[in-house]
Amino acid sequence: MVSQAFEEISPADFFYRNRDIAGFTNPSRAIFAAMRELVENSLDAAELGGFPPDIYVRLTYGGEGGPESKVYKLRVQDNGSGITSRHIPSAFGQVLFGSKYKLKQARGTFGLGGTMAVLYGQITTHKPAYVVSSTGSTKVYTYRIMIDIQRNRPIILERRVLINKDRWHGTIVEFSLEGDYFRAMPKILEYLKQTALVNPYANITFVDPKGRLYRFTRVTTKMPVPPKETLPHPYGVDVETVNRLTQFTQHRNMLDFLKAHFHRVSERVAHSFLEFAGIAKTKNPKKLDPNEVVTLVRMMKRYEGFRSPSASCLSPLGQDLLLAGILKELKPEFVSVCQRKPSTYAGHPFIIEAAIAYGGEIPKRGDFLLYRFANRIPLLYDEASDVSYNVVKSMNWRRYRVSQDMPIAILVHVCSTKIPYKTVGKEFIADRPEVKKEVLNGIREASRKLQRFLSKRAHVEREKRRLSVFSQYLPKIARFSTELAGKEKEPDIRQLLESVNKLGRTETRR
Amino acid sequence: MVSQAFEEISPADFFYRNRDIAGFTNPSRAIFAAMRELVENSLDAAELGGFPPDIYVRLTYGGEGGPESKVYKLRVQDNGSGITSRHIPSAFGQVLFGSKYKLKQARGTFGLGGTMAVLYGQITTHKPAYVVSSTGSTKVYTYRIMIDIQRNRPIILERRVLINKDRWHGTIVEFSLEGDYFRAMPKILEYLKQTALVNPYANITFVDPKGRLYRFTRVTTKMPVPPKETLPHPYGVDVETVNRLTQFTQHRNMLDFLKAHFHRVSERVAHSFLEFAGIAKTKNPKKLDPNEVVTLVRMMKRYEGFRSPSASCLSPLGQDLLLAGILKELKPEFVSVCQRKPSTYAGHPFIIEAAIAYGGEIPKRGDFLLYRFANRIPLLYDEASDVSYNVVKSMNWRRYRVSQDMPIAILVHVCSTKIPYKTVGKEFIADRPEVKKEVLNGIREASRKLQRFLSKRAHVEREKRRLSVFSQYLPKIARFSTELAGKEKEPDIRQLLESVNKLGRTETRR
Repeated sequence: MVSQAFEEISPADFFYRNRDIAGFTNPSRAIFAAMRELVENSLDAAELGGFPPDIYVRLTYGGEGGPESKVYKLRVQDNGSGITSRHIPSAFGQVLFGSKYKLKQARGTFGLGGTMAVLYGQITTHKPAYVVSSTGSTKVYTYRIMIDIQRNRPIILERRVLINKDRWHGTIVEFSLEGDYFRAMPKILEYLKQTALVNPYANITFVDPKGRLYRFTRVTTKMPVPPKETLPHPYGVDVETVNRLTQFTQHRNMLDFLKAHFHRVSERVAHSFLEFAGIAKTKNPKKLDPNEVVTLVRMMKRYEGFRSPSASCLSPLGQDLLLAGILKELKPEFVSVCQRKPSTYAGHPFIIEAAIAYGGEIPKRGDFLLYRFANRIPLLYDEASDVSYNVVKSMNWRRYRVSQDMPIAILVHVCSTKIPYKTVGKEFIADRPEVKKEVLNGIREASRKLQRFLSKRAHVEREKRRLSVFSQYLPKIARFSTELAGKEKEPDIRQLLESVNKLGRTETRR
Repeated sequence: MVSQAFEEISPADFFYRNRDIAGFTNPSRAIFAAMRELVENSLDAAELGGFPPDIYVRLTYGGEGGPESKVYKLRVQDNGSGITSRHIPSAFGQVLFGSKYKLKQARGTFGLGGTMAVLYGQITTHKPAYVVSSTGSTKVYTYRIMIDIQRNRPIILERRVLINKDRWHGTIVEFSLEGDYFRAMPKILEYLKQTALVNPYANITFVDPKGRLYRFTRVTTKMPVPPKETLPHPYGVDVETVNRLTQFTQHRNMLDFLKAHFHRVSERVAHSFLEFAGIAKTKNPKKLDPNEVVTLVRMMKRYEGFRSPSASCLSPLGQDLLLAGILKELKPEFVSVCQRKPSTYAGHPFIIEAAIAYGGEIPKRGDFLLYRFANRIPLLYDEASDVSYNVVKSMNWRRYRVSQDMPIAILVHVCSTKIPYKTVGKEFIADRPEVKKEVLNGIREASRKLQRFLSKRAHVEREKRRLSVFSQYLPKIARFSTELAGKEKEPDIRQLLESVNKLGRTETRR
C-alpha cells in the first residue's frame, strides 16, 4: 500500500510554487506585475505621509536572459514616508509581512506584492535586491538582501547607514529580473496612463530600456481627504474576529466592549442590541463561551438597529479630481462624473465612482472602452470576469441613445476597505450583488447626463441645418420678390432669420 | 509625520483574511467550495491507494445561521489510503501543510483546500472538526480539532484510538459550517454530475439536507493508469530549484548531477549540454557560484537537445473512459472523443482531451454547453476567463456545419503536473499559448468527426426522403401501367426499389 507523505511549506515557498496566482505568469506579465506592485507601494507610502507622490521608475537593459526574456534592472523611487530601518529587510524579503492591516482604504492589501517582485527577480537572476530608505530622520539606510524562500526570511548581505543631510524621505528599490519588456510595454504604458488618470495629484516618470522618457505630470497638488482608520462594523465580523477582540480587550462588561471595539455602536445601540441578543450587559466578554460567541455574531448580523458604516475610512477621488484626471488623460468632448453615496457589502463600506466620456480623443472601437479602478489602482487584466464589465454588457444602451460604435469610455472606481478581489494579482472584482447594484446605478446616472448632452447636440445639429436652409434661400427669395415687384431696395431679412433661429433663444419648443 | 507600522501574519491568517481568493466568497460559494475541496481530497486519496473511489457526502441541517445562511453539518467519507495518525491534525488544521508535492498529476495542489473548509466552518460556527482515519492498519484514529489561526497550528481537543477489526481504510471528515445550500444546490449537483462524468470509475453518493439521495454509480472499475512521479525537466526549472538540488545532491560532478536529478537527461545529452553551456563535466555542483547557477538555468532553456518530457507523470482519462463518462451523464446521440499527444509549456508536460457531443439529452441553448476539466476536476466558475472558453468563442464553427442553436456540448480536459490556474479556488485556467494551441487542435479534431456525422446524417435524410417518394409512387405507376396494358399481373417492383436504395449499399456516389 502506498501511503501519503506530508510536508509543511513556508508562505514564500507557496507563492514561489504558485506564482501564477500572484500575477507572475510569464516574462511579460512578470515585469508588469513587478513594476505595478512597487509603484502601488510607493503611492501608498507617499499618501500615508501626506506628500503629493513623486514616483520615478527606471527600467534598464541588463543582458540576455532565457530564450523569451531579457534581464532588466528595475528601480522605483518614491518620496513616501519611508520604512524604519529594522523593518526594511522583512518588508522586501518576507512574504506576508507588510504594513499593519488597518480598516481603511489602501492599495496594497496582501503584504505580498513587493516581496513577490523581489522573489521573482531572485529566482530569475540570483542577484540581491538593493533597498534605500529613510523616514526623513538624520539617517538613510541601505540594504542588500536576498530571500531564504524555504524559511521565508530575509538574508541581509550588506547594511549601511548614511548621513541624511537633506532630510530626504522615501524609499528606493532596485533589483534585477528577467522579463519581456517589449511584449509588456503596451500594458505598462497603459497602466501608467491610467494610474496618472486616477491619481492626478501624482508625478510619475518612467524611463524605459531604450531611454525613452514618459512623464505624467500632476495637474493639481490637491489630494483626496486621507481615509481614517475605523473599527469593524458588527455586520462584518465573524467568530474569529470577536474571539481576538475578547482576548485583547481591557473592558470587563459587554456594554463597554461593544462601544469600544465596534464601529458606530453608541450606548443606546449597545443596550438595545444586547437586549435583542439576550446577552447580559454585565457579562464579561472574556467569559463568553464558544456558543455565546457564535450567538453574538449571528445576532449582530440579524439586528437591524446598527447604523451603517461611515465612509470616513474611505477616500474616493471626488468629482473634481476624477474630472481633472479624465480631461487630462482622455481629452474627451464631454464627460459626466458621478459619485454614489456610501454603501456596504458584508459589513465593508464601499463607494462607487463612475464616469462616462464621449468624443474628443476617445477612439471608436465597436465596443466601449472600460476603465476599471479599485482604490486608485487600474485593473488591466481579465476584464470579462469583472463586475463592471458584466454590468456594462447587461445594460440596455439604446435607452441612452448610445450605440457600441460611438467613441465612448466608461470608468468605474470602486473604493472600499476590502475590495472583493478574486485573485491575489488584483486583476478583477468579484460579482457581489451590493457592489453590482451600485456600479449599475453609477453608470446609469452618468449615462443619463450623456443622454441629455447627446439629445441637445442632436437638436443643435438639426437647428443648424434648418437655419442654413433659411439663410440660403431667404436672400434669394427676397431678391427675386424685389425684382418681381419692380422695387430697388431689398427688404431687411435679418429680423426674419433671427426669428427662426431657435438656437440663440433660451426657450425651445421641443 | 506618520510612519508605517508593520506586522507578520501566518498563512492561515492570510487566507482567513482573504478567503475570497480561495473561493469562500459568500454562504453559497462557501458551501460549494468546502464540499468540493473534501471530495477532491477523497478522490485523490482513493486513487493513490489504487481503489476505485467510493465517496459518501452528507449534508444535514444544523440550525439557523446568519440572515442569509443556515448551519449545516458536512460529512465526507472515502475509502482512500488514509492518513497516518500523527499527520491527521495538521492535514486539516494547518494551512500550507499537505501531501508532499510531487511532480505528477494530482487534483489538489495547494495544500490548502481541506484546511480552508475546516477553517471556514470554525469561523462561522466555532465548532471543532471531527476526523476519523485509518491506513488499513489494526487501528483507527479519531480526532477533534480546531485551528489556531494566528499561529497556523492545529489544536487537538480529543484523540482516540480504536481497534480496526475490518482493516477499514479511508478518511471521514465531519464539521459544521454556515452556508446557503439552496442557493448552492444547482452548482453542487452540477459539480457532482460532472465529477461523475470525468471519474466514471467512482461511486459518489450525496444525501442533501432534505434527505434526498443522489447517487452516481460507476460504470466501470477500470481506472486510468496512475501517474508516475517524475524529475523536473530542464526547461522548467529556475535558479531556486537548481539551488535546492545542489544542496541536496550526493553527486560530486555535473555529469552525474544532471543525470540524477533531471528528467530524461541521458549520459549523451548531459555531455552535449555541458559542452554547449561551457560548464566543466567534473565541476562539483555544490561549488557552483550564483552566476554559474544563473548561466546553467539560462543555458537549459536555450539548449535544444533535451528530450521532451514523458507523459508517464500524467494520467489522462483515455478515450474509453471519457466516452463512457459522457454517454453515462449526457446521453447524447453522437460523441467524438480525442486525446492529443503530450505537449509542454514552460517545461511542464500536459495532455489535452477534448470531446464534442451532439443531440440526445443535450439541450438546445443558443450557445454551446462547455464542460471544463483539469486533472479530473470540473471547473464551474468564471468560464469567460478560461482558455477553453476563449478557444470555443474564437472558432469558425460554420466550417464544421455547426451552429450555436444546435444541441452541442464541448468538453475539454487539461491534464498536467502543473495546471496554470489563475486562482487558488481553481476556477479557471490561464491563457498559456501552448495550452491554447492544443485545446484548439483537440476541439478541431473532435469537431471534424462531428462534421462527418452531421454530413452523413444529412445525406441519409435526403436518401430517406428520395426513397419514400419512389416507394410511394412506384406501386401506383406499376398498377396504372398494368391496367393500361390490360394485363392482370403487376410487375415485381421490389428489385427496382432496391436499385434506387443507396442507403443499403456500401458505396454511395456522393
